[in-house]
Amino acid sequence: MKGSLLYEGKAKKVYHVTDQPERLILSYKNDATAFNGKKKDQFEGKGRLNNLITSRVFDYLKLHHIPSHFIEALNDTEQLVEKTTIIPLEVVVRNVAAGSITRRLGIEEKTTFTPPIVELFYKKDELDDPIINDVHAYHLTDVSEQELTRIKEMALTINEHLIELFKQAGLQLVDFKLEFGRLKDGTIVLADEISPDTCRLWDLESGQKLDKDVFREGIGDLIETYELILQRLEENTCAK
Amino acid sequence: MKGSLLYEGKAKKVYHVTDQPERLILSYKNDATAFNGKKKDQFEGKGRLNNLITSRVFDYLKLHHIPSHFIEALNDTEQLVEKTTIIPLEVVVRNVAAGSITRRLGIEEKTTFTPPIVELFYKKDELDDPIINDVHAYHLTDVSEQELTRIKEMALTINEHLIELFKQAGLQLVDFKLEFGRLKDGTIVLADEISPDTCRLWDLESGQKLDKDVFREGIGDLIETYELILQRLEENTCAK
Ligand SMILES: Nc1ncnc2c1ncn2[C@@H]1O[C@H](COP(=O)(O)OP(=O)(O)O)[C@@H](O)[C@H]1O
Ligand SMILES: Nc1ncnc2c1ncn2[C@@H]1O[C@H](COP(=O)(O)OP(=O)(O)O)[C@@H](O)[C@H]1O
Ligand SMILES: [Mg+2]
Ligand SMILES: [Mg+2]
Repeated sequence: MKGSLLYEGKAKKVYHVTDQPERLILSYKNDATAFNGKKKDQFEGKGRLNNLITSRVFDYLKLHHIPSHFIEALNDTEQLVEKTTIIPLEVVVRNVAAGSITRRLGIEEKTTFTPPIVELFYKKDELDDPIINDVHAYHLTDVSEQELTRIKEMALTINEHLIELFKQAGLQLVDFKLEFGRLKDGTIVLADEISPDTCRLWDLESGQKLDKDVFREGIGDLIETYELILQRLEENTCAK
Repeated sequence: MKGSLLYEGKAKKVYHVTDQPERLILSYKNDATAFNGKKKDQFEGKGRLNNLITSRVFDYLKLHHIPSHFIEALNDTEQLVEKTTIIPLEVVVRNVAAGSITRRLGIEEKTTFTPPIVELFYKKDELDDPIINDVHAYHLTDVSEQELTRIKEMALTINEHLIELFKQAGLQLVDFKLEFGRLKDGTIVLADEISPDTCRLWDLESGQKLDKDVFREGIGDLIETYELILQRLEENTCAK
């Protein structure tokens, strides 16, 4: 069923599916990278955790009628998805100030954004994923004005659903990154992953950081942290 | 008539006007700075040239019904303007790729933008004037959505007028930076300066750089260059 390797990213390998040209298999790796690949390590079990967390989150979003690439988890580390042409944008939604925005704009950590802030970054490793505005996006990608408006609306709707999901798990959704892709017919759907690699999650009670920041900042055990997120989602949410 | 110093920037001193609390005098300095103040020098005559060029440009824009702070040049280095509360945004319009955008987004120098690209930067020296999007602008300044739309429309209209003005002077308008301010009644008007310090101007025939890039890149005599711009505007345009 798993065909040849299509490409390998920092966190996943992407495989063709034999006899199903419109599907792909995402195979989650144990690699962790931060600061655009400048910090690197390997964590036994990370691939499994991100695959299972992402699968759970995408199942939940499917229940809430968010169109996505996700079909199903195949095993501990792999999932079946619709093949898309990824739009080279990282769409970031921020509910609370943390990370790059605090340094970039001098905004104090924990400042609440109401309404949430949506940011676009041009997905281009060589350029360190620079932040861009809408007009840049029209120049750098094939999205139309109408499509970009729709992408931002989808991102904000997804935010509302994810805030609720993580709240049930005792977690505050601080910010997260999404990627969108086009199906063969041109429709834009949510793609890629939603995991502690791509979200900032703080414990609702203690404020403790429970996401990739434990790796970025060297302040905790990555596997224990991701395991906790999966457990909390499994025990406390009606994602499935 | 000239009152006390209100504040001093990198390129101008700003004075109160005695008995006219709603007016200011902008006094153009001979200082040149680049890379947010990291490169610095002084050029005898620069203040005069930027004052006279800016005055000419703002007179021309007034003829074309662009609301601005500009009242009149008072002497070689000073001009009388309406006092505004500056909105801390640098509004950049780009017709052709040059400077920071080529490095930031990997766009080749001389790429034409149709329609022109409008960029917003948060005017904050300590943060090195970071690029921002519209939603950041709502968080960081007091502009409303409607006002920001209007500011961008004004910037594009000003662009059309300036393209024409500089074309008459044998110059290609590559890009430029605007600042807007609020009058006492809240109305937003064009403020600050428009000079070879704030525009990229290339000779229409030879492509030669005739603006602050001669200082940034150390490729020509700043005073000769700015003198040429003033001369060409005086001789070839119907700015007044
Ligand atoms: N449904 C999909 N169709 C095609 N490509 C996808 C899909 N979902 C994710 N991808 C892409 O898979 C690649 C591998 O993922 P990842 O390892 O996270 O890459 P990166 O190093 O770019 O972050 C990325 O380029 C991502 O955009
Ligand atoms: N009409 C105006 N009312 C009030 N301030 C103004 C007006 N026009 C320009 N300014 C401000 O005058 C200051 C001095 O100008 P400049 O030397 O160019 O400063 P900077 O170092 O910030 O570039 C700037 O803060 C600019 O925004
Ligand atoms: Mg990725
Ligand atoms: Mg200035």
